[in-house]
Order: sequence, then C-alpha cells, then structure tokens
Amino acid sequence: MNKPLEVVVSRSKSVEDHVLEIIEILNHNSNEVDLKGYGFEINKAVDIYNALKDRLKEGITLEEVSIGSETKDRKRISYLLLRIKRSY
Amino acid sequence: MNKPLEVVVSRSKSVEDHVLEIIEILNHNSNEVDLKGYGFEINKAVDIYNALKDRLKEGITLEEVSIGSETKDRKRISYLLLRIKRSY
Repeated sequence: MNKPLEVVVSRSKSVEDHVLEIIEILNHNSNEVDLKGYGFEINKAVDIYNALKDRLKEGITLEEVSIGSETKDRKRISYLLLRIKRSY
Repeated sequence: MNKPLEVVVSRSKSVEDHVLEIIEILNHNSNEVDLKGYGFEINKAVDIYNALKDRLKEGITLEEVSIGSETKDRKRISYLLLRIKRSY
C-alpha cells in the first residue's frame, strides 16, 4: 500500500472508465495514484481528475501536479502528471 | 510589475505565438504570467510551457500548477493554470 501506482490516460478509454479504475486502485491497491496524460490526452487527465473529485470530494487530495516532456521515437511529447492521494 | 498577468491559450494562435507573447510580457509588463488553458487547449498550455522552458531555461521557474473547472454557459469546463515567474 505504499508506492503510487501509475495510470496512463488512454485514448480509447472513457473518462468514466478511468475514474472507476482509479477508485478501484485507491480502494484496494494503493493510497496514491499517479495519473499521467501525454499529448492530446493531457486535457482528458484533467477531466478525469475533476470527475473523480466530484465523486469522492474530500476523500482525495491532489498531492502534486507536474508537467514536462519525454522523448518517444525521437519526438518530444509533453505530459501532465497528477498525484492523487486517498485522504482517509 | 507585480500582479501576474493572465494569458489564456487561444485555439487560433500557435504555440510559438504564445511563447513570444509571454516573453514580451515577462520582459516588459510583469515578473509573473498566469498561463491558462481550457478544455482542448490544456495540452497546448503544457506545450507552450515546455517550448518556453527550452527557450529561456533557468530564466523562468514554474511557481505553481493548478487544475480545476469553471462553469461556462451552464457547461463545466476543465482548466489548467501554470504560474510562470521570471527568475532574474
């Protein structure tokens, strides 16, 4: 129940699917989840966080937000990382 | 030279246009700029920040990253806010 598990936003999964996946992880696998969105999935990551916050309210806190870029196949791609923690 | 000026990411402007706009502001108008992207422009906000960081390197610091949502025309829209500060 220690290391944050990483969830990468997928183009093919809905916001709701990701919300349920994260709730599942926070309930059973880890107190923290790193939600990471690359490129066009960055805005979806924010939508997922907002939907999750609506659902769980004070049950989660946003520990950290970080942005940066990584090189993939010689192309640079921006990312947004949201570290979400279960409050209790 | 005090209050952070807000730049909202525009669908019609290129990443490079926004980079130049922010450099202009940091040089002449304010030490801090709030770069805000809504909805589909959220990922562009991150691209703009990364391009600006490439250009100015240690010349800027990312003071704060925040996310949330606002209601516009009864629709809820996610946003990402990046507070960029001139280092020297």
